[in-house]
Amino acid sequence: MPKEKQSKLGITTKKNENFAEWYVQVVRKAELADYASMKGFIVLMHYGYSIWEKIKNLLDSRFKESGHKNAYFPSLIPESFLSKEAEHFSGFTPEVFWVTHAGNSKLSERLATRPTSETIVYDSYAKWIKSWRDLPLLLNFWNSVLRAEITGTKPFIRTSEFLWQEGHTVHANRKEADEEVFMILRIYQNLIENILAIPVLIGKKSDSEKFVGALYTTTLEAMMPDGKVLQMGTSHNLGQNFAKPFEIKYVGKDEKEHFAWQTSWGVSWRLIGAAVMVHGDDKGLVLPPKIAPIGIVIIPIFYSKSEKELVEQKITNISEKLSDYGFNIYVDDREQYTPGWKFNEWEMKGVPIRLEVGPRDIKENKITVVRRDTFERNKIDEGKLIEELERIFNEIQRNLFNKAKNYLENHVTRVNDYVEFKDVLEKKGGFLKAYWCSKQDCEDKIKMETGSTIRLIPLENEKASGKCVYCGENTSTIAFFARAY
Amino acid sequence: MPKEKQSKLGITTKKNENFAEWYVQVVRKAELADYASMKGFIVLMHYGYSIWEKIKNLLDSRFKESGHKNAYFPSLIPESFLSKEAEHFSGFTPEVFWVTHAGNSKLSERLATRPTSETIVYDSYAKWIKSWRDLPLLLNFWNSVLRAEITGTKPFIRTSEFLWQEGHTVHANRKEADEEVFMILRIYQNLIENILAIPVLIGKKSDSEKFVGALYTTTLEAMMPDGKVLQMGTSHNLGQNFAKPFEIKYVGKDEKEHFAWQTSWGVSWRLIGAAVMVHGDDKGLVLPPKIAPIGIVIIPIFYSKSEKELVEQKITNISEKLSDYGFNIYVDDREQYTPGWKFNEWEMKGVPIRLEVGPRDIKENKITVVRRDTFERNKIDEGKLIEELERIFNEIQRNLFNKAKNYLENHVTRVNDYVEFKDVLEKKGGFLKAYWCSKQDCEDKIKMETGSTIRLIPLENEKASGKCVYCGENTSTIAFFARAY
Repeated sequence: MPKEKQSKLGITTKKNENFAEWYVQVVRKAELADYASMKGFIVLMHYGYSIWEKIKNLLDSRFKESGHKNAYFPSLIPESFLSKEAEHFSGFTPEVFWVTHAGNSKLSERLATRPTSETIVYDSYAKWIKSWRDLPLLLNFWNSVLRAEITGTKPFIRTSEFLWQEGHTVHANRKEADEEVFMILRIYQNLIENILAIPVLIGKKSDSEKFVGALYTTTLEAMMPDGKVLQMGTSHNLGQNFAKPFEIKYVGKDEKEHFAWQTSWGVSWRLIGAAVMVHGDDKGLVLPPKIAPIGIVIIPIFYSKSEKELVEQKITNISEKLSDYGFNIYVDDREQYTPGWKFNEWEMKGVPIRLEVGPRDIKENKITVVRRDTFERNKIDEGKLIEELERIFNEIQRNLFNKAKNYLENHVTRVNDYVEFKDVLEKKGGFLKAYWCSKQDCEDKIKMETGSTIRLIPLENEKASGKCVYCGENTSTIAFFARAY
Repeated sequence: MPKEKQSKLGITTKKNENFAEWYVQVVRKAELADYASMKGFIVLMHYGYSIWEKIKNLLDSRFKESGHKNAYFPSLIPESFLSKEAEHFSGFTPEVFWVTHAGNSKLSERLATRPTSETIVYDSYAKWIKSWRDLPLLLNFWNSVLRAEITGTKPFIRTSEFLWQEGHTVHANRKEADEEVFMILRIYQNLIENILAIPVLIGKKSDSEKFVGALYTTTLEAMMPDGKVLQMGTSHNLGQNFAKPFEIKYVGKDEKEHFAWQTSWGVSWRLIGAAVMVHGDDKGLVLPPKIAPIGIVIIPIFYSKSEKELVEQKITNISEKLSDYGFNIYVDDREQYTPGWKFNEWEMKGVPIRLEVGPRDIKENKITVVRRDTFERNKIDEGKLIEELERIFNEIQRNLFNKAKNYLENHVTRVNDYVEFKDVLEKKGGFLKAYWCSKQDCEDKIKMETGSTIRLIPLENEKASGKCVYCGENTSTIAFFARAY
């Protein structure tokens, strides 16, 4: 294949030159996702789906370990359900897809394609829950939701349909609902930091940024390489805000009727987009080993027929050992491509480790191992291959996390006044940590004037106090502002 | 709990007296599914979802072993895509839910909520496939589809939304597409017979019963206890019928352009409904061990505090051993219910084996084991518990299959003329095996006059020939007619 054609297959822009264009190229050229013909929709291709399956399987087992069960609710929701909780309704209606006809018949009531399931789920919960014995009710749903996104769409990050999970739990009292909210937050944090290798800041949303209908919303926020922040997941205490209109009541041990307390929480395929943004480089995707569908790609290198046989035999031998041990390997023995072409392809697809098996190495009982994150090449004794691969996987996972962690820490700036605020926001981006008087008026003005919003309020207040970055009023509340996706 | 209240919790009608009512009671009282508030929709409750997860995990690994990968396509499909294949469009439009608005804006083109994904998938396939190197393309999707069902709705069997999988593959030629169709048919047959314990007849559909847009449809059909037949799954060779309008073309090794060949295939949560119908009894659900979310329920039996301690210790001991071995067990130690109440509840939920642990048995180192399918009770030496449970699980699985197999075999009746046809159909139901001239006119008249349709045409023709059961014309084609769900 001519050189020129090879390079066109690669990423044609640099991550630090045109981040938005780089991102879309990586997503499409690594074949994670493709655009669908309808604007705002994407197709999750099988390579991207494999990553989603990894995330899903991990989360699913953690949900199950903590007592949650899966179920499935309809994807269409009557308008009258959505409108039972007024704030919730006004928050979602602008982006709801409405079903108005079945076949040629006009429906007597419009149905929303599920933008989130609170209302239809709570209609059933009200029927199912009678007594304290029915609590807690801990359910989770793996499904897709639809929210019409017209502007600023971006694969995985903002699409008109996305895959996610939504948990919906019911508890006897506020304390248990609070505990649930934070237990889930820790499960999410563990997934995002230890599996996706993306460090997060956690905290509560301000009232104007919380989930429509929630008592409070907790959030996990990550730093993207362009200085913008991405919300990775949220866990809400819904209080009794839905229990009252939906009449979710239980008879307690005291034999009296009580309204229940509820939580809901979710993460979506957006996590895949975050991993692309945070870890990718100018060659394409860089996958943390723990979510990589293929951990190790093996490339045969030979120039003659006798070398070919030698190499193929060695590869059969090694790949059996590695598969038996539990590594996900792929042997790229396609004859129509050169080794160099294959290197580019698998680098683009972010496979963490490449093994090159050639005749010279074989004679020395060595294998060449190349790391995707640093491109470091090493010849490794065949006898030590498994332990070395284990070590390198751990190192890659740690290295990706540490790099992202350094970046995050360098992008949290304490600012004391509004001039500094605007200056740092323009020049550096990232999180701006500032005192805030807790009034929505200041929050709104900052948003209007700078495009930055309160991403989170730390869970523990500082003991000191200071002046609101906007109005100067004394306050002990710290908020983290940022421009966000 | 008073006797009367206990019995109300149970199934209040007999399977052979009012089958339709019995079925709905079992589905709802075993908590597999509940009605949603919108007519025709159900909620898959967690117990039902666990069964779906078992089916899904099994099928998913077989699909993957045979080279298929999962992906996800949008749930909304533009009307212009649906209408590209004319037969397909006219087949589906009467039952499509149409999205006409996003928020307050009218859409320029209506979007169908996915009734099946052929058209939107093939729009992408046309972009992805260029060369013979891109073939075969073997993808599968786990999703839900919507088809407005107004009359005759029944949980799992006919609902306006259902969970299923749909496979969509592309091949270079007819031979490979044929092979794919039949490989999938065998995977389905293996699942349905060996896991769900439901015997099936397999064959091809007649032209008027095949999938709209297919070249031919293969099908698996099972016998329900009311003499009606249920279609369990289908696998279609689409020929080039979609490749042409969607322009799915590839450059072959001959360097010429060819239209591709395609298949699609699916099974749905209907399989759960079939298992309820076939295996259930007057006490409720009877689950084949291989799909039971709980394999063994353990009930403590004691009358005094000292007995309670003894029993609890023994149960801790046994349940650890059984879990370690890999059985899915559940210890029902709820104190507010009597053992008798628990027996009824778990029988209703179809748990294959119940262990009763009481002080008298413990003294003799025995455990009482009760089979759900036959209610047979046995005291088993504790030392032989695991091997005995394994044996009983296998026996239950085999017994359920054999019972269903006998029933099926007794409900295939060879009929020679139309009088006999109608007589057997009225008095016995089941499959009527008859010669058919292959003309749609006879098929239509039989359907109109008797309500029975051709369920399948055997894959291998008989060598003999005979007279069409309707018009008397000579033919060598045999068809299996039945009334069906």
